[in-house]
Amino acid sequence: MPESNIYSGLNQNQLLEEKKRLTEKYGEYKAKNLKLNMMRGNPCKEQLDLSNDLLKIDLGEIDYNAKEVGDCRNYGGLNGTSEARELFRELIGADNINEIIVCGNSSLNIMHDSIMRSMIFGVYEGATPWSKLEGDKKAKFLCPSPGYDRHFAICEYLGIEMINVKMNGDGPDMDEVERLVGSDSSIKGIWCVPKYSNPTGITYSDEVVKRLANLSPAADDFRIYCDNAYIIHDLTENGDNLLDIFAECKKNKKEDMIYIFMSSSKITFAGGGISAVCASEKNIKYISSKMFIQTIGNDKINQLRHVLFLKDKAGIKAHMAKHRKIIKPKFDAVVNGFEKNLSGTNIAEWTNPNGGYFISLSVPENCAKKTIALAADIGVALTPAGSTYPYKKDPYDSNIRIAPTFPSVGDLKLAVDALCVCVKLAYVERLIGA
Amino acid sequence: MPESNIYSGLNQNQLLEEKKRLTEKYGEYKAKNLKLNMMRGNPCKEQLDLSNDLLKIDLGEIDYNAKEVGDCRNYGGLNGTSEARELFRELIGADNINEIIVCGNSSLNIMHDSIMRSMIFGVYEGATPWSKLEGDKKAKFLCPSPGYDRHFAICEYLGIEMINVKMNGDGPDMDEVERLVGSDSSIKGIWCVPKYSNPTGITYSDEVVKRLANLSPAADDFRIYCDNAYIIHDLTENGDNLLDIFAECKKNKKEDMIYIFMSSSKITFAGGGISAVCASEKNIKYISSKMFIQTIGNDKINQLRHVLFLKDKAGIKAHMAKHRKIIKPKFDAVVNGFEKNLSGTNIAEWTNPNGGYFISLSVPENCAKKTIALAADIGVALTPAGSTYPYKKDPYDSNIRIAPTFPSVGDLKLAVDALCVCVKLAYVERLIGA
Repeated sequence: MPESNIYSGLNQNQLLEEKKRLTEKYGEYKAKNLKLNMMRGNPCKEQLDLSNDLLKIDLGEIDYNAKEVGDCRNYGGLNGTSEARELFRELIGADNINEIIVCGNSSLNIMHDSIMRSMIFGVYEGATPWSKLEGDKKAKFLCPSPGYDRHFAICEYLGIEMINVKMNGDGPDMDEVERLVGSDSSIKGIWCVPKYSNPTGITYSDEVVKRLANLSPAADDFRIYCDNAYIIHDLTENGDNLLDIFAECKKNKKEDMIYIFMSSSKITFAGGGISAVCASEKNIKYISSKMFIQTIGNDKINQLRHVLFLKDKAGIKAHMAKHRKIIKPKFDAVVNGFEKNLSGTNIAEWTNPNGGYFISLSVPENCAKKTIALAADIGVALTPAGSTYPYKKDPYDSNIRIAPTFPSVGDLKLAVDALCVCVKLAYVERLIGA
Repeated sequence: MPESNIYSGLNQNQLLEEKKRLTEKYGEYKAKNLKLNMMRGNPCKEQLDLSNDLLKIDLGEIDYNAKEVGDCRNYGGLNGTSEARELFRELIGADNINEIIVCGNSSLNIMHDSIMRSMIFGVYEGATPWSKLEGDKKAKFLCPSPGYDRHFAICEYLGIEMINVKMNGDGPDMDEVERLVGSDSSIKGIWCVPKYSNPTGITYSDEVVKRLANLSPAADDFRIYCDNAYIIHDLTENGDNLLDIFAECKKNKKEDMIYIFMSSSKITFAGGGISAVCASEKNIKYISSKMFIQTIGNDKINQLRHVLFLKDKAGIKAHMAKHRKIIKPKFDAVVNGFEKNLSGTNIAEWTNPNGGYFISLSVPENCAKKTIALAADIGVALTPAGSTYPYKKDPYDSNIRIAPTFPSVGDLKLAVDALCVCVKLAYVERLIGA
């Protein structure tokens, strides 16, 4: 954040004057009894409506059959239907469907379960289970931050120590990542959302991807936990280009070092999509051997349905263009609101991503909590302060995650105007020392 | 098994003669190039067809909404829709929906995950995680046998020692269960399929249920893992009556001692149903607090669909009557086949259950493996020998699990005739010492 801003020249009296003015404005919003929610990355009704035909497909026409697993209404097909595996294979650019397992409706669930398995069984056959590691050797994860709160929650819950790594405009600080991963064998993973990172919306540069794919970890059970949640979720026609990290790993013969997770949650239905994990055949075989004990198979009917509805990568791309039409104006409303209210103030910075589900707002140090509390008091709900950092502790108390997809454009405009008053008020109060 | 049978009076020559006759017959079956499968409890196509309308429900008419969770296409509703919770509540006879969580398509998955959580976190807040128990204190489970192979697989996989308890005609040997559970604090659970037990098809008597519900375990984190897979799966109009074990536990103020698992796998679709866990509110709160980290929610669209299709317990009962019409003749074909071929021989016993998915065949000691191998060689696939016992070791090598639902009645007749030849041949060969 720049040192000098619109308030920096003001004396205490002027600040009190400014506070009075802002408090009045704040009161006006309060009087409106707003109920606006920019908290979670939920798709809106119009987005969900785009996939209603998914539920109208007559599976009877193909006798409910998938190519290899047969009748999808019955048991079996632990790794998913080969058609659904092919869909995700094409999407991620993997070489063959043996690198893909298609699961239920939640990729978070796959991530969680793969880490649970690592706790109990270890990452590969014969590896030490993380639950057996004590003291200095206890499993740790690198957490580029700000990042996704749900990733961090899994680590916190399992007692996996999180090490905060700085997230730059082109991805994690790779000098730091290389230094830590290369030297400390207790570091077992790094969380990554390489495309339209949650919450900053940035896409990792080619250099960052290449360096990630060529890590030389001290731990042989280190893995990159790559959550490709927004792999095809562009807000502009062409979107950002993400170098194929799996292919890069293969070039370095390090394909066992990465898991890639995906889902159709933000393609079709957030609550009723399908999800997948992509990894080397060796990793997939291991995961599958453990999953065999957990379940007889996931819901293949939904897999069948998704393949018939989305067809292939081109089909998904065409479908995502419809999402874009709905949500691009929402992102614009937020960014325009910030520009209108905060441009030139030098008290805030915000991202203007080419895709994904979030806009990241940086307010002055020690102001995020206050801002969010002020917004909550006038009915504007935001992701709790600190959520985007390990242990919910933003070291600067500065990051605010904005989720623009769910509210209407009108509501967003109102919410952002109100939020900007909160940003200013919080800062002015801090300057005054209130 | 009775001591004297049709072969017990024969001398070696007569036995060789008999073997020759049986081998000829066996050869005739082999020449038929059969491909018959009585291996897994898969519903048949006609059963699956009963629920095709489930996939044709127009959820648009109710705007995809469930009562409390709202739009089922979106995120949320971790514990399931209240409508789906109510459906399972009524089915199990729980007091309120706070005793129910509805999950994805697999109740095995819920069982697996609850045991994984016990390994990592312990059974309740503050309990010792089982993964931290060493030596004598390592977690053990009682496994009434013969039982369900998938239950035993979870224990084996997690290194939970399995203690074989005799399964009687009215349930597990309760003297043994009470003695073990009451004295050994390393015993953390007992697997139960109280209605139409897998594979014997017996239903626990009132006395067994009452004694189970009144156990005084040495371990305060002991739980009854009650898999109510066949809760409403009667083969006769009224079926067996199972005393309400959850209500019995409550009477004894021991409601925290039990988890009950259910699914619609064998009501609607084996690969695409919904599942649930029922437990005390205290247990449910704990499970839910852990599930919160694992997923944002299960597929609520499928929950919505199931409620609209099945409606309530009466609706499920009516639906199950249609299943009965299809599968009762199959069970009859197997039982009649055994009666025709084996009645009076005194070399085999079989169950004739009033519900469930299996018939259990007992052959003379040390003959099950041999019988199953002989059957496999002529194209009759059966559950591998030993599967129904912990560590896949049937101490008597005597139990064979028959799954009659999938094949046609014609195929079943043929398969059972062929199997009976294998039973006799295996036994005669054993008598001869071949």
